[in-house]
Amino acid sequence: MAFDFLNDAENYKSAEQSHIGITMVLDKTLPLSYANNLMKIAGNYIDFIKFGWGTSILYNEDIFQDKINVYKSFNIEPYCGGTLFEIAIIKNKIDDYFNHLKKYNINTIEISDGSIDLSLEKKLYYISKAKDYGFTVLSEVGKKDVEKDKGIGLDLRIEMIKNEIKAGSDFIILESRESGKGIGIYDSNGIPKVSDVEEIVNKIDYKKLIWEAPLKNQQVYFIKKLGVDVNLGNINPDETISLETIRRGFRGDTIDLLF
Amino acid sequence: MAFDFLNDAENYKSAEQSHIGITMVLDKTLPLSYANNLMKIAGNYIDFIKFGWGTSILYNEDIFQDKINVYKSFNIEPYCGGTLFEIAIIKNKIDDYFNHLKKYNINTIEISDGSIDLSLEKKLYYISKAKDYGFTVLSEVGKKDVEKDKGIGLDLRIEMIKNEIKAGSDFIILESRESGKGIGIYDSNGIPKVSDVEEIVNKIDYKKLIWEAPLKNQQVYFIKKLGVDVNLGNINPDETISLETIRRGFRGDTIDLLF
Amino acid sequence: MAFDFLNDAENYKSAEQSHIGITMVLDKTLPLSYANNLMKIAGNYIDFIKFGWGTSILYNEDIFQDKINVYKSFNIEPYCGGTLFEIAIIKNKIDDYFNHLKKYNINTIEISDGSIDLSLEKKLYYISKAKDYGFTVLSEVGKKDVEKDKGIGLDLRIEMIKNEIKAGSDFIILESRESGKGIGIYDSNGIPKVSDVEEIVNKIDYKKLIWEAPLKNQQVYFIKKLGVDVNLGNINPDETISLETIRRGFRGDTIDLLF
Repeated sequence: MAFDFLNDAENYKSAEQSHIGITMVLDKTLPLSYANNLMKIAGNYIDFIKFGWGTSILYNEDIFQDKINVYKSFNIEPYCGGTLFEIAIIKNKIDDYFNHLKKYNINTIEISDGSIDLSLEKKLYYISKAKDYGFTVLSEVGKKDVEKDKGIGLDLRIEMIKNEIKAGSDFIILESRESGKGIGIYDSNGIPKVSDVEEIVNKIDYKKLIWEAPLKNQQVYFIKKLGVDVNLGNINPDETISLETIRRGFRGDTIDLLF
Repeated sequence: MAFDFLNDAENYKSAEQSHIGITMVLDKTLPLSYANNLMKIAGNYIDFIKFGWGTSILYNEDIFQDKINVYKSFNIEPYCGGTLFEIAIIKNKIDDYFNHLKKYNINTIEISDGSIDLSLEKKLYYISKAKDYGFTVLSEVGKKDVEKDKGIGLDLRIEMIKNEIKAGSDFIILESRESGKGIGIYDSNGIPKVSDVEEIVNKIDYKKLIWEAPLKNQQVYFIKKLGVDVNLGNINPDETISLETIRRGFRGDTIDLLF
Repeated sequence: MAFDFLNDAENYKSAEQSHIGITMVLDKTLPLSYANNLMKIAGNYIDFIKFGWGTSILYNEDIFQDKINVYKSFNIEPYCGGTLFEIAIIKNKIDDYFNHLKKYNINTIEISDGSIDLSLEKKLYYISKAKDYGFTVLSEVGKKDVEKDKGIGLDLRIEMIKNEIKAGSDFIILESRESGKGIGIYDSNGIPKVSDVEEIVNKIDYKKLIWEAPLKNQQVYFIKKLGVDVNLGNINPDETISLETIRRGFRGDTIDLLF
């Protein structure tokens, strides 16, 4: 690495070792060659890349496959946004959907009900069915509509998380959308609701959670609150390395990690 | 396409068919190869690309021509922002300007008076002159300065639109700038002024209008209000596919289009 | 250039002449090939490119060197953010740091104390030491933490600037962070504090200052206030040409420069 002699933080075994907490990046449709070139710089610091919401449908098949292959070549797991699962539910094509993912060599799936009504029973059924298919399952808790999301009390949210973990979810994603504002654990300015976060981590192992945290203040908050091994998602691809510098104390906001 | 079996919305004849409403994208100076690679993913969903305001002047001639050729190879019409026309007016070089566009194989022109004073009579004259030159004419109504723009009442705005259509404008662009805030039909937070929009579409065929709508809430608003065939402009190139998913019901905000 | 006949502003000797004021761009980790392709369009208008804060540490050495070489091939001076200097201070590795920069053929250095405590005496010492090493020195005044930054009164800020110039700094950077809000001369909405700016330019030659001005309203403000030769920094790479159009009167906000 370029400045190895400055990079001896005890948190990391070596300068080339990737971060400890999971980083999930949001691909809103990066050009293929840009994605490839960005991965040469940032790929070491990414675990999952999500093809946002239903964008996958608008890809030409060849480019879609090429992009998956690019990400996999950097040991990153690509997957399709939960909205695609929900569209498959609406169209009653779940088996086709699961098989298509397998065909493209996608081994991770998101199960969500952010935009559709799905009973908890059915959601758990699909989580467990996806596990049977061999997928790594990320299930998402939260609604995309601000008012509907408010309707989920904190207790119910925690109850859902617990049930989904029990049903086999590898990680639970806490919804915040691309904007990071007004949904779930964030107020309308994107400020985390501290008491909600505390209540959640009191009752759930935070290593099972991926907090969508697109805004820098959110990333700083969680890293200071929960440590460098916190799992963060919906990261802008161009800010992957910014996040990693925050994790490691290489940006002003967290430089006291180095002391 | 990658998930054809999920893409049977009756609004579209086939999965590869482009959107119905016009999408106009704002190019603030994308690198040439990035533009080319982005078009491989998003080019099907774009009708016009605007070289923003006076950026065209700062291009090297070869790169400028290459970019035009790239966009045309994807059946997209490139054109120069209205500010370039206004600079040509200031410098009294309109014929040179028209001829230069032709030389570069640009067949669309924007006629505007966002930053200069131009009598309506003269504006109509240039619209009609541009038609005589064989251009597709987009004319823009609105001022770039917030206070000056406020000075145009709604009645006058509608009157100008009608006159410009009569003079030959193929489409009328409703100014909102890159930011989408505090100008024309948007308040200072970028929220559409609903009664203004209704008044305009009561008096003008909305198929003749292109609404500058750089913000997602604006795109969702117009698609819900006027339908998937609404014409939208000043779209961030990297959000072209996001917009298209909103048009087709593949994003949470409009997923009820699928029911 | 593409529209030379529109580009005869007396402020510039020729259409290809670069801008007069210094433009410093913030590279948050552009992919190497993207950087190269962007420079083909925007490289003429950039003087310095900063590898933001501590991002340099997370580069593979080969890519880091390649990027430096790309920027230098466009006559742009690359340098590392001041946070990297501060990390070297924390780790007590200043000589290694200076030598590493030289090894990579980086000839500009930023000396700052945005995130660490450093006595003015020591800061001046490092400025002068860096000059002895042959670096072009940019020294930064301001704290990254909003509250700490507020603690520096205007008089002290001006005093520090004067001292750092005296110690050999080639340019003084006025901190505003990537966001441009709530720090130094900007209020929490990114609006310049006019009386502070006036006080500073009354006491310091503005040609020795680089104002971090990531937001468009800030760029417009300084160009209108101090002229096209004002030095601006923390520019988003993709907005380099936008800034240059503002400098030259090719965007609505400053088009009156052409009259």
